[in-house]
Amino acid sequence: MPESIKTLIIHAHLFTMQGDGVGYIPDGAVAVKDGRIVDVGATSELDARYQASETINASGCALLPGLVDAHMHTYWAIARGVAQDVGNWMQAALSPYARHATPEAKLAGTKLNVVEALKAGTTMMMDYVPLYDGWAEFYEKAGVRARLTPMINALPKTGMAGLKLGALYPYDDDAAQMKIEASQAFIQAWHGAADGRITAMWGPQGPDMLSEDHLIQIKKLAEREGLMIHMHVAQGDREMNQMLKRYGARTPEYLANLGYLDEQLLAVHLTEATDEEAAMMAKSGARMILCSGSIGIIDGIVPPMRAFREAGGLVALGSDQASGNNVNNIFNEMKLTALFNKIMARDPEVMPAWEVLRMATIEGARAIGLGDKIGSLEKGKQADLILVDLTAPNLTPVLVDPVRNIVPNLVYAASGHEVKTVMVAGKILMRDREVLTLDEAAVQAEAQEQAEMLSRRVAEDSSLHGQMALMAAMEEGRL
Amino acid sequence: MPESIKTLIIHAHLFTMQGDGVGYIPDGAVAVKDGRIVDVGATSELDARYQASETINASGCALLPGLVDAHMHTYWAIARGVAQDVGNWMQAALSPYARHATPEAKLAGTKLNVVEALKAGTTMMMDYVPLYDGWAEFYEKAGVRARLTPMINALPKTGMAGLKLGALYPYDDDAAQMKIEASQAFIQAWHGAADGRITAMWGPQGPDMLSEDHLIQIKKLAEREGLMIHMHVAQGDREMNQMLKRYGARTPEYLANLGYLDEQLLAVHLTEATDEEAAMMAKSGARMILCSGSIGIIDGIVPPMRAFREAGGLVALGSDQASGNNVNNIFNEMKLTALFNKIMARDPEVMPAWEVLRMATIEGARAIGLGDKIGSLEKGKQADLILVDLTAPNLTPVLVDPVRNIVPNLVYAASGHEVKTVMVAGKILMRDREVLTLDEAAVQAEAQEQAEMLSRRVAEDSSLHGQMALMAAMEEGRL
Repeated sequence: MPESIKTLIIHAHLFTMQGDGVGYIPDGAVAVKDGRIVDVGATSELDARYQASETINASGCALLPGLVDAHMHTYWAIARGVAQDVGNWMQAALSPYARHATPEAKLAGTKLNVVEALKAGTTMMMDYVPLYDGWAEFYEKAGVRARLTPMINALPKTGMAGLKLGALYPYDDDAAQMKIEASQAFIQAWHGAADGRITAMWGPQGPDMLSEDHLIQIKKLAEREGLMIHMHVAQGDREMNQMLKRYGARTPEYLANLGYLDEQLLAVHLTEATDEEAAMMAKSGARMILCSGSIGIIDGIVPPMRAFREAGGLVALGSDQASGNNVNNIFNEMKLTALFNKIMARDPEVMPAWEVLRMATIEGARAIGLGDKIGSLEKGKQADLILVDLTAPNLTPVLVDPVRNIVPNLVYAASGHEVKTVMVAGKILMRDREVLTLDEAAVQAEAQEQAEMLSRRVAEDSSLHGQMALMAAMEEGRL
Repeated sequence: MPESIKTLIIHAHLFTMQGDGVGYIPDGAVAVKDGRIVDVGATSELDARYQASETINASGCALLPGLVDAHMHTYWAIARGVAQDVGNWMQAALSPYARHATPEAKLAGTKLNVVEALKAGTTMMMDYVPLYDGWAEFYEKAGVRARLTPMINALPKTGMAGLKLGALYPYDDDAAQMKIEASQAFIQAWHGAADGRITAMWGPQGPDMLSEDHLIQIKKLAEREGLMIHMHVAQGDREMNQMLKRYGARTPEYLANLGYLDEQLLAVHLTEATDEEAAMMAKSGARMILCSGSIGIIDGIVPPMRAFREAGGLVALGSDQASGNNVNNIFNEMKLTALFNKIMARDPEVMPAWEVLRMATIEGARAIGLGDKIGSLEKGKQADLILVDLTAPNLTPVLVDPVRNIVPNLVYAASGHEVKTVMVAGKILMRDREVLTLDEAAVQAEAQEQAEMLSRRVAEDSSLHGQMALMAAMEEGRL
């Protein structure tokens, strides 16, 4: 007598990501019940074993774990494309928009970004933003898996704009304390919410952006609660200068002395870290989040991910923010990570497709502390998975013998638009490209409206005249 | 009394690519008659001036010149993804498939590749393949603009497979002579065909792949006929070794001495050229074709395009072949070209979005000798144009003031799937993502069938056992 289950997906090119490789099963199937995977194997076997409420025929599709995006600032989708090709990105191009971003604009950006990422197969989103109303509630409604990090800093209300380049930032310790308390309340309210689909982390914005006392306070709170710390680390020469001036040490050494380097730390970027510093951090057990696209565009730099991994560290991929990437899409990050590292090493064998696919799935899940719940398709794990249509012209042909071409094409030829169906915790969030949990057109329209209002405020701010990096490009007709 | 025309496109974010920048016109319109652009300007003006058989409302879309792909080996779409992440790509990964590719398989690859590129907004395709039946006829039917180059070499029938690494290739001069004659016949039949939509070029495969006598003969024929020469130049250390052994000179010096360096030459790749050699070639008037994606994947190298352009040279982009890129998509090439050059220079200001967009349109058209006919939207030019849907989540929001974000988003955020409508010579080839001139499903099915047959022949060829680079990856479950 077959066992009753909710969903059976059959006839897929199944990549379980179990074991050391990609765990391919030809004509594979996955059985889902109560939000979890209850079985994985050959279609012929599972078909006989289960009676499903819904059977999905995945013929012509790749079936993969949902992708992990370990670092997003979703609200910046509201300013996609306003700050590229400039030298001092944050202060000269982004800050004018940051200054005028209202909570409504930020939430509209979050909604847009979540839709964008979901449509590109991202099921696990690690969002890292200053708190605003409706943020976590939106994730609850959208149905994606999320680890949410309220960003904590001691920067003045006006942000980075107007700070003298090279001078020490002034700290507003009261503001930082309030943000720590707000984070505490947020964590109590949301960590483990939506049946565990939503979890939280502690998020100091960077070791240069709040006082040492506050860094220590956050570390203690995180330890007490068993939560991870999501933090920008060595994210640019600006930060390194601050650290050297303030503490006489580069960031990795400073964090080591402070007791911050352990398995609790998710260190984002490492843009300015040396190979030696990256290796030292990896050996401490800290995890790295690599944002190839954004750091390539913003800084023209390829972070020392290879040194970090060679020292045994776990790395997850992140898409960062649309005002400097300009897309939040893990297919894009996989491709750029493989290619950037090949050309920096002048070696085509570096960072093969299967390795970056692992970073986007099982290795990424382990890096962010969820390796026991997601990242591979195996019995007992959450049913977070995607179907990718391999009959798209850019993914045709599909070959399995003597050389299987699916993984290289997912990494080098797919764009994310080929993702057909997305499931999180057993629930279908997108079917045949249609998002079921959200009104995509309304999200798009709200983002457009809020972005136009934001742009108008920027245009009308006379204090910004002469301070925005892209004005010459506008005048010369290059934009 | 309004003038009668065939098509009027209105309400677009219009990028004419006229002048030195991107030639933006807000709420722009283009009027088309008899396959050409008869007017370009504000919607309000053109709307009053013309009576069109069809009016296309391009609200929410960018309207651009069709993209130029200056180097494709279309038949290799049949083996997409079988040869990545390996050191000796051509001999250890591609050759096993090359040996077994029938004319039917190649033509199926061409069809697939043309559909793929057309759907990604490429309207001008420079295809460079060994002649096979039906090749040019397919371009005639597909409706895209094409410059077709039959590839000429003196290599033995078995190709590169089995040649000892490092040894001089044997030349089969009779075979080369037959290919020259076949090219001559092809050029007579097809140069200027389909109302000038199809043109031809001469195509020695590389300076190392046929005798000096044949190189000279081809140069004379091309000069007599006023045709350009499309040739791989300095395409790898393999070629450089051959040139040094055979002639005691590196490729650029050799070609200079042979009288090959002038405006007639389209030099593809320059993978192994130094900055000085690239600058020397640029100053000769020769043009460069840059294939960022394929050279990145195959060689892990970023060719000296910046040195070539800084010396005044014109550069077009090319997608090369799907067995080593793995996608034939100029949006992909624009993004990779911008990003690769930023990270090699460690400078985010290098290769801004507008420059790569020019390389994909007007500069590319000039480089391939068609700057008077295509590459920009202006009166008198061919009506080759594309509409890109800017309401896609990854291209939202659209902002025009104070910073216009459309060009950065087309380069850094678009994937080509946002291309909605494609027109060539005034004829709509794709409307709302539906290809009108070809049966996309049939093309996909034929390619899949031919690719499976090809793979079977490769699998059954016992002479290849132990010689294919990716077998270990297959056994270890990494593919």
